[in-house]
Order: sequence, then C-alpha cells, then structure tokens
Amino acid sequence: MTPPSPQPGRNHQAPRGTRDFYPIEMARRLWLEDKWRRTATRHGFDEISGPTFEHLDLYTVKSGEGIVSELFSFTREGGETAYALRPEFTPTLARMVAAKANALPKPIKWHSIGPYFRAERPQRGRLREFTQWNVDIIGNYAYEADPQALSQLGVESDAEIIACCIDALRAFGLTSEMVRVRLSDRRVLDAFLSTHGVIDDQSAKVISLLDARAKIGEEDYKRALSEMNIAPDVALGIDRLIAAFVQPEIRPAGVYSSVDVALQPYLDPLAVLWNHLRDLDALEWCSMDFSIVRGLAYYTGTVFEVHETGGKERAIAGGGRYDNLVELFGGPPTPAVGFAMGDVVIALVLQDKGLMPSDDAIARDMGLAPDVFVIASEEAADVLLRPVLAHLRRAGLHARRSYKSTRNVGKLLGEASKANARYALILKPDGQAELKDMGVQGGEPRKLQSPSGAEAVAAWAAEHIPKA
Amino acid sequence: MTPPSPQPGRNHQAPRGTRDFYPIEMARRLWLEDKWRRTATRHGFDEISGPTFEHLDLYTVKSGEGIVSELFSFTREGGETAYALRPEFTPTLARMVAAKANALPKPIKWHSIGPYFRAERPQRGRLREFTQWNVDIIGNYAYEADPQALSQLGVESDAEIIACCIDALRAFGLTSEMVRVRLSDRRVLDAFLSTHGVIDDQSAKVISLLDARAKIGEEDYKRALSEMNIAPDVALGIDRLIAAFVQPEIRPAGVYSSVDVALQPYLDPLAVLWNHLRDLDALEWCSMDFSIVRGLAYYTGTVFEVHETGGKERAIAGGGRYDNLVELFGGPPTPAVGFAMGDVVIALVLQDKGLMPSDDAIARDMGLAPDVFVIASEEAADVLLRPVLAHLRRAGLHARRSYKSTRNVGKLLGEASKANARYALILKPDGQAELKDMGVQGGEPRKLQSPSGAEAVAAWAAEHIPKA
Repeated sequence: MTPPSPQPGRNHQAPRGTRDFYPIEMARRLWLEDKWRRTATRHGFDEISGPTFEHLDLYTVKSGEGIVSELFSFTREGGETAYALRPEFTPTLARMVAAKANALPKPIKWHSIGPYFRAERPQRGRLREFTQWNVDIIGNYAYEADPQALSQLGVESDAEIIACCIDALRAFGLTSEMVRVRLSDRRVLDAFLSTHGVIDDQSAKVISLLDARAKIGEEDYKRALSEMNIAPDVALGIDRLIAAFVQPEIRPAGVYSSVDVALQPYLDPLAVLWNHLRDLDALEWCSMDFSIVRGLAYYTGTVFEVHETGGKERAIAGGGRYDNLVELFGGPPTPAVGFAMGDVVIALVLQDKGLMPSDDAIARDMGLAPDVFVIASEEAADVLLRPVLAHLRRAGLHARRSYKSTRNVGKLLGEASKANARYALILKPDGQAELKDMGVQGGEPRKLQSPSGAEAVAAWAAEHIPKA
Repeated sequence: MTPPSPQPGRNHQAPRGTRDFYPIEMARRLWLEDKWRRTATRHGFDEISGPTFEHLDLYTVKSGEGIVSELFSFTREGGETAYALRPEFTPTLARMVAAKANALPKPIKWHSIGPYFRAERPQRGRLREFTQWNVDIIGNYAYEADPQALSQLGVESDAEIIACCIDALRAFGLTSEMVRVRLSDRRVLDAFLSTHGVIDDQSAKVISLLDARAKIGEEDYKRALSEMNIAPDVALGIDRLIAAFVQPEIRPAGVYSSVDVALQPYLDPLAVLWNHLRDLDALEWCSMDFSIVRGLAYYTGTVFEVHETGGKERAIAGGGRYDNLVELFGGPPTPAVGFAMGDVVIALVLQDKGLMPSDDAIARDMGLAPDVFVIASEEAADVLLRPVLAHLRRAGLHARRSYKSTRNVGKLLGEASKANARYALILKPDGQAELKDMGVQGGEPRKLQSPSGAEAVAAWAAEHIPKA
C-alpha cells in the first residue's frame, strides 16, 4: 500500500501519433463531434457504437493478412485469442448487422463517432489515433427491391449518404468552392478495360496504378502501364473517359460509341444518382471523376472522396458502396453504402480557411461558458459562498467561484470576465446580493435588498439569469 | 482489388467482455454521458481527453510490474516500444499536468469521459471495455497554500469533488436512501495501528485485510489477523474505531483518549470536510467508514466509495486524494483529488431501482425524436419529397421519410408515430401540403392551401413546427 517514491525530472509523453486534449483542444473536438452528431440526426441516422478492439480475424477476413502490419494487435497475457485496435468501423458495422439481420427493419440508417487506430508512421493529417465519424445505410428500400430496377439498386441511398456528408461540410461553414465531392463507380472503369481485353488481375493493377498516379507522377505511371503491356490507345482511352465525365452532368450515351453497351449498365444509375443529388440540393458540390478508386478492397460500386479544392490536404472524407460485406460476416446478402470522415484533416482544412471558431465562440456554442460567477466580497460573506454555489448548481446553472485569496471585487470581476461568465453574483456580508450582467458595459447591477438565506439568494439569482 | 468471396454462415462476435451498442443501448449510453457532462460543467470542470493507449511504463512506474497481467499490452509490429490500453485515467492526467505544470493556473478542475480496458475475466458490473467518467481537482487553492493551514490542505477540493459526485447521483434520480458515499482517510487507521506498534508492511497488510474483509468473511479475517500476531485488543480497537465514526458527525476529540494525539491531525480536517459537505448540501449522502481502503497504491489521504445501500452491486464510484502522483511523473509537488464513475454499475443500479428512463423518454430528452416525418401521399408528390426533406434539414429540423412502397396515408402516419415524430408533413400532388401534430389526438391538420415549390413548403412547415 506504500505509494511509490517520486522520480522528479522523469518525463512521460503521449505515445507518438496520439494527442493530449487540454480544455481548448477538447472544446474544438466536442464542437466537431457535435456538428457530426447533429447532421446525422437531422438526416435520420441513429447513433451506434462497437468495441474499440475486435478479434484480429475481423480484419484479415476482409483485407487479407497484409493488413496486420498496419494494425496494433495483441493477445491477453497467457491468452491465445488475437485482438486488434480497430482501424475502421465498417467491419464492426457489418458484423453487428449480420448478427441481427432478420430483426432489423430495412433500410438501417446508422452513424457512429469514436476512436480509431493505425500502426503506421504518423504524417500530416494521418495520426495513430484519431476520431472518425461513420455514416451508413444498409439494406434495400422496399421500392427498390424490384429485380426490374436492379440497375438503379441503391441509388437512392447513395444520394442520401452523399447529401448527408455535404450537409456536414455546410455545417462547418465550408462551401462548394472550397471543397469538392469526387464521385466514381469502379465498374465503369472495369467495364471499359474489359472491352479492351484488360481483365482480372491486370485490370486490378491498372486501377491501383490510377489510384497511385498523383503520388508517383505521370512518367512512372506511363512506364508502369507500358511494362504491363497496356496498349497506348487504351491508356489514352482511360484519360478520355476520365476527362469526359468531369463536368457535373451525365451523358448516358454516345460518348464512346464502341463501348457504350458495356458501360451503359453503370452509367444509367449514375445519371439517376445525379438527378437525386440535384433534388437534394447537393449537386453543385459534386464532380464525376473516374480516377477516384479508394484503397479498400470491399467497395463494389459507387465510390467518392471529398477533397479541399486547393489539393493541399489528404481526403476530408471518403466512402462508397460495399454490397458484399454483411454476407462476408455471416449475414444474408445485403447492399450497403457509407462514408467516414476523420477529425484530423477536417480540422486542418477549417483552420486553413479561417473557419475554426474562436475559443470563446466555441465555449458559447457548446454551452461551456459559466452562467454565473459567485463572489464573496468580504470574509463575512464566505458563509454564504458554498451553499449559494450548491443551490445554483442544483437549479441547473453552471456556477463558478474564485479560488484566489483576494477580496478586491474589481479583480474578481476581471476573473469572472476572463472565465466568460454571463453574470456575476456578489454576496454581501449582511446576506444581500448583487447580480451583474457581465455583457452590459457600465450597467447597474440588480440588487437583492432584503437579507436572505443562501437558498433564497440562489433562487433569486436563478430567476433573474435568462437561459443561455 | 477483387473483393474477397463471401463466407456465409461464418459468425463473428464482439470480443468477450465488450459490447455492441445498437441504437437503444447507445441512446442510454449517450444519456448517461450527458448527465455526467452536464454535472461536471455546472460544477465548473473543463473537459479534457488523452490517448486511448499509453506507454506501458506509465502504469508500471505507478503500480509496479504486477499490473501488467491486468493490462492489454502490445508493441507495433517490428517496434520495441511497449504500449497498453489504458485501465484508468489518473496516470494520463498526472502526465498531462506534469507536462504543463507551470503554465496551468491552479486549481485545475478537469473532467473526462472515455473508454477504459481491463484484461481480467469479465464479471457482473466489470467488463473488459467500459466507459468511465473522471473528475479531478489538481493544485492548491491560493488561500490554502498557507503552511499554517497545512492540516486543512485540500479539504475544500475534497468537499467539491464529493459534492460533484453526489450531484451526478441526484441527476440520475438517485436519493441518499438508495446510495451511500462512504468516506475514509487511510492515515487515521495508519496512525491508530502505529500507536499499537503495527507499522510499515504489517500495517499495509492489516489494511489490505480490511479491504478484503467483506469478501473473505469474518472467520478468515480474524484468523489472518491472529496469524500476523495482531493482538486481540488491537483488532477490537479497529472495530471500535470504525463503529464510532459511522454516524455522520465527527467527534474531533475524546473518543479514544489514548490515541487522540496521534489521530488528531487527521480527524481535524475530516471535521472541516464534514462542515463543507453540510454547506454544499451533500452531507445527508455521506458516512464515515474507516474500513474503506481503495485498492490503488497512490492514494495519500481522503478516500471514498459510493455504494448502493442494499450492497447488491460493486462500487458505483470511487476516488480519493493522490498528492504524490504529479511529482511521480516529473511535475512539481502538486496535491490532487478526484473520482471515477463507470457506466456499467451505475446502469445496473438505475435499472434495478426503475430509474432508467423509457426509450421514448430518452429519445425526447436527448433530442433524438424526429421533428417531422414527410409523407408523399401519391406518386405525383414524389417530385417534392427529396427537395422538401433537404430544405427541412437545412433549416435545422430532424426530418425523416418512409422507405416503404405503400401510399396508404394511415399506414404512413402509423410509421411516423412509431418513429416518435412530433409532426407529419403530408405532401399532395398539386404542391399543397398538410402539417399534422402527432401529439394531438384527432386534431385537424394545418393546411397550406396555395400550391408552392419545395422550398416554400419546407419554409412554411419549419415556421409552424415549434422548437422541441
């Protein structure tokens, strides 16, 4: 039971790539999370959550053994079961849906906010621990279950997911000039390559190359294509396909007459999606971009990424359709679409654009500013201080006090002002009290004249302090 | 890029001792966390947060190597640094304070809500992952820094911490009949044992035995004492000491004349603490109980535990004074006191007492009930559905729709009611609309007569739906 002896000077730090959130950083994080939560709620998504760690095979089943080096994995001492800190939410979500697939009315609309982990080298915009918002729609809409409408399967939910993502960007004060939602459907490129005899592994390699293109540069990209024996006219065709669909409108036919038949089944739903996005007031934020690939192997259709238009940061958000995942985890075949937004990149973008509110504004916004700062002007008023604080707090008010030894009311009002308190309550030795509106310059304080007990003083103050 | 093939029937589950939070469980969790957050804010605590995992030595420095078996610990693949999922918050807090000790005005009043982990066998009330609320006051109050007042050091913050804990219990609807805050100061028992020649390791063993007493039973407790050669009159003295102070008042002198001098330095501050708790309207919840020991080695003074009075569950909350911990992590000598409350036991107690609100009440309380449920009564009104939803949501309303294929307005109103929607907005094919208050039985809907566009319909509806 003896406490260990102090080791002054020994320094302990947060693990590399993780963060300590002191009050100001924490208020910003809570503000971000609040915008996410309110946006999801407005759009009809219910919040859920899963464990912070999962069985390791939840990730290897989906992504292969290669993912293990990107995970923090562990076993319990003396135990055999391998666990991993979750790098993303989707496998947990698919597992939760699979476990109750028949009991859950469809479509399922869920969102989740929590910590995620990557065992990689930390970089700008990419930490080892970060907070992520996940928003997903799982299962068919009844009126889309018609097999005749197969080509439009899921377009309604694709549009809702994208509109929800855009509404969050709006809630942060971003505009469609500052950020861009770039949309693609992997199957378009797949179909295009297939009509040129590029299939299976070779097709996958070309798509991976496209994903890496911006990073490796044009020269390496072209060399790699030619090493794979991709004909120059196919390479040119990819570029023309990408270029032709950048404009925010879909041309359902006639652009590539030779491959129309192959692309049509994927271009038609994109045209419908475009109309839905227009209906949902989201279209001006969106561009088609078939070079968007997304790294995760489980995407099966629409994919999208949100980028700052200056190209300065990593993707702000990303998502897509993953129709096979619930089945992979033991559930019935269940279409699904969703996206994730991390806290790190969005905060960098907001700071860069001057859109991160001031600390005072966040404190007000989040209801963190004290309602009242209680001051005992003389020692004889100290007897009231604690009981008045207790009664104010029980009345639901955020009440603070000074812990300084000074009795100088001017200095104490300065402390109240620095704490952003809305009102100051000055207790007098005779049981009287004064209530001062801290937002009113030179205003006369409201005075309680008749000497009263602590409970009456607190009730009087609570009555005269309007709701924040 | 090829998605892995499905493995239907293969079942994945959450790791043992962790939880999946579906929407209803998540709403309860958010409700609990909201009560914690609001209570801490009312009492003037700022929220902070730290990493979910720390360097392993943050825990071994404090608790010795013995703690490793209770931790989930790991290294990065190919890395050498050992990490552990945090089992508690206090070491992170002490590290954060030590890192900025000189820059932070004292006293520091912080709270934190987040996930914690134990690698032990899960039991009732004790899971491998749980949410915990930590509330701490660190550093002296200016007027207590007077060395003359050394014996009262920290009593003011001890009282504030306990009052905050009790206010949270009140916020959950608990009463002082249902739960009890049991207070102790280890140094009283230490001093008592010391006057009887029981010191150092032997004293620590006796105190450990007291901690285990309820679990091992009276017989084993007494046998163990006698095996340690503790004289029967000392054992009797311990019991008399514990019995004498159960009543909620402190007798500062005269109870044990022979040991008064030794106990006095610790009993005096407890008498002051008792008065402070009375001032803070918290006394009726508290009892002195010198048998309360708390397992953690770092407590240096006051300790307390909150228990359901029926004795059915584990401790609801626990805390105490840990004056050496900031120094242990490289900061200056800094007194500190705090407590933690986990989500698991409090939820069991609330359920047992019938105090967990209904799902509907929680949805209303947390602002999760839809403001409006939008219905397209005929196919011709579908063109309005998406734009009206988008405009309602941009106006800040929580707006939902049906995804069923039925056009039966009665059925759709039933769905709106089941979703707890406050209003239903029925769109007509001619651009007219009706707004129905779902809380008013048989009430006439308000009608928008002049045909309008989606934006005008949404603005009209938003204007006529009062704030929740």
